[in-house]
Amino acid sequence: MKELRGMPVTKAMLKDLEEKIRELKEKGRVPKLAIVRVGEREDDLSYEAGVYKRFQSVGAEVETKALAENVSQSELESCIAQLNEDESVNGVLMFRPLPGHLEEKRIKGLLKQEKDIDCLTSDNDAHLFAADGLGYAPCTPQAVMELLAYYQIPLTGKKVTIVGRSMVVGKPLAMMMLAENATVTICHTKTVDLKEECRKSDILVAAAGVPKLITDEYVRPGQIVIDVGIHVIDEKLCGDVDYEKVAPIVEAITPVPGGVGSVTTAVLLKHTVLSAIIINSKGRGSNEGKVCIS
Amino acid sequence: MKELRGMPVTKAMLKDLEEKIRELKEKGRVPKLAIVRVGEREDDLSYEAGVYKRFQSVGAEVETKALAENVSQSELESCIAQLNEDESVNGVLMFRPLPGHLEEKRIKGLLKQEKDIDCLTSDNDAHLFAADGLGYAPCTPQAVMELLAYYQIPLTGKKVTIVGRSMVVGKPLAMMMLAENATVTICHTKTVDLKEECRKSDILVAAAGVPKLITDEYVRPGQIVIDVGIHVIDEKLCGDVDYEKVAPIVEAITPVPGGVGSVTTAVLLKHTVLSAIIINSKGRGSNEGKVCIS
Repeated sequence: MKELRGMPVTKAMLKDLEEKIRELKEKGRVPKLAIVRVGEREDDLSYEAGVYKRFQSVGAEVETKALAENVSQSELESCIAQLNEDESVNGVLMFRPLPGHLEEKRIKGLLKQEKDIDCLTSDNDAHLFAADGLGYAPCTPQAVMELLAYYQIPLTGKKVTIVGRSMVVGKPLAMMMLAENATVTICHTKTVDLKEECRKSDILVAAAGVPKLITDEYVRPGQIVIDVGIHVIDEKLCGDVDYEKVAPIVEAITPVPGGVGSVTTAVLLKHTVLSAIIINSKGRGSNEGKVCIS
Repeated sequence: MKELRGMPVTKAMLKDLEEKIRELKEKGRVPKLAIVRVGEREDDLSYEAGVYKRFQSVGAEVETKALAENVSQSELESCIAQLNEDESVNGVLMFRPLPGHLEEKRIKGLLKQEKDIDCLTSDNDAHLFAADGLGYAPCTPQAVMELLAYYQIPLTGKKVTIVGRSMVVGKPLAMMMLAENATVTICHTKTVDLKEECRKSDILVAAAGVPKLITDEYVRPGQIVIDVGIHVIDEKLCGDVDYEKVAPIVEAITPVPGGVGSVTTAVLLKHTVLSAIIINSKGRGSNEGKVCIS
């Protein structure tokens, strides 16, 4: 069994990005991400700390707009509008889900597509669905694609089973893998024989949001298993895959922690840098930026 | 073998739509579709004639904007802009593909979403991808859904194999069937064992655009086969399924002609009527129309 760790992927990405950041700085431009955080959820704070660490390690900037848990819709919308106008900001990451009193749909229509580096907007959803090479994918499915590319795991003609149909991972990843010529099956809670659907795949992606759902009965020798889940059970991190049971059987597997999750902040950086390059090349303040999926 | 003919589906839809059209007319409003046709392709003309017949049979209006094959981009864009403003027009159908010198992408961004009754715009693509119940699906996959609903073929937990990954049929239908809790596999030219992928399904959708691709080797008893293809071979119409070979084996199958294709103009009418109802209920000229997938 080969362990597909995220760190080598991230390192390779950072090497390339450091070069791009240096070139941008020579032109007087520093890539900058703005994080919009409503409230102080522990998950958000922990991810935010990881983003700061990643960006600062390569000289990119991050700024947090920390809004109170009870922020009004109009205050949140003003914040987004301000970030749209702020020429120093290349990318905007807004933590989701928002508290119940806020309307995420309205925000989706507000953010400029060129700053939407985590696929919040309908514009980027449409690009992703069409697989037209424009727009940014959400960071997590993009991290899966980066990981597969790094480990030279081809997708053409491969049977992929994705467990989970969310707009954050399952469906975007299905479109991305389909564009790379995989034969993709999307499973979910209503799938009748999930074990069989999982076993028949060459590449199995667990993105169900259920801790240790995928056990030895769901896999067979020769498979590549990608675990997108992340949960805290008994004060320990685990994924959607029961690693102890599955790892001895399959050909390769991503660990949790240290797998897909560890690549997402590098993707966030990559998208922010790409956005800075494009805005720079078009002149500041342009809102016609249409950007390539990394 | 049961033949899943389109005509009873269309008739049931028309019965319901006639009632809605009568109610609209009582309020002084007649549902109206505008067709934008560039050039005089035979397929387009033939479909157009079918649309006129369907709409006129229930007292709805159709108007064609016939543009020359060599129309300029700006002339086409003016035409769309004019239809956006025309309060008597509830839906716009533009025949595709456009001639090579015209840029379809720019048109996608122009048409008002509330008049986009065949899913030309990115806005409707995004709604379809998110399966958020807003926006209109393209008419052909919607016709498949209408047909399955009419014949009371449930999708929950069913294994569906879709052959074809186009933005006109394959991918939209995958999202629509997924939203109805089917386990969906999307196949294409790079799928390694297409026969097996087809045979293992409960419902097989042929949307590959290849005449008679699906033969007896691709099916098994008990399956429902939906044929979305339409081709002219030796002056006879046929689909993506080799009907003669497949029909005796499977449980149910849509014929070509007389199957899915015969429902699409009814879907076009349904979407136009829905659009008229929504615009009417919001006051004329509103461009904030967000409409439910029928």
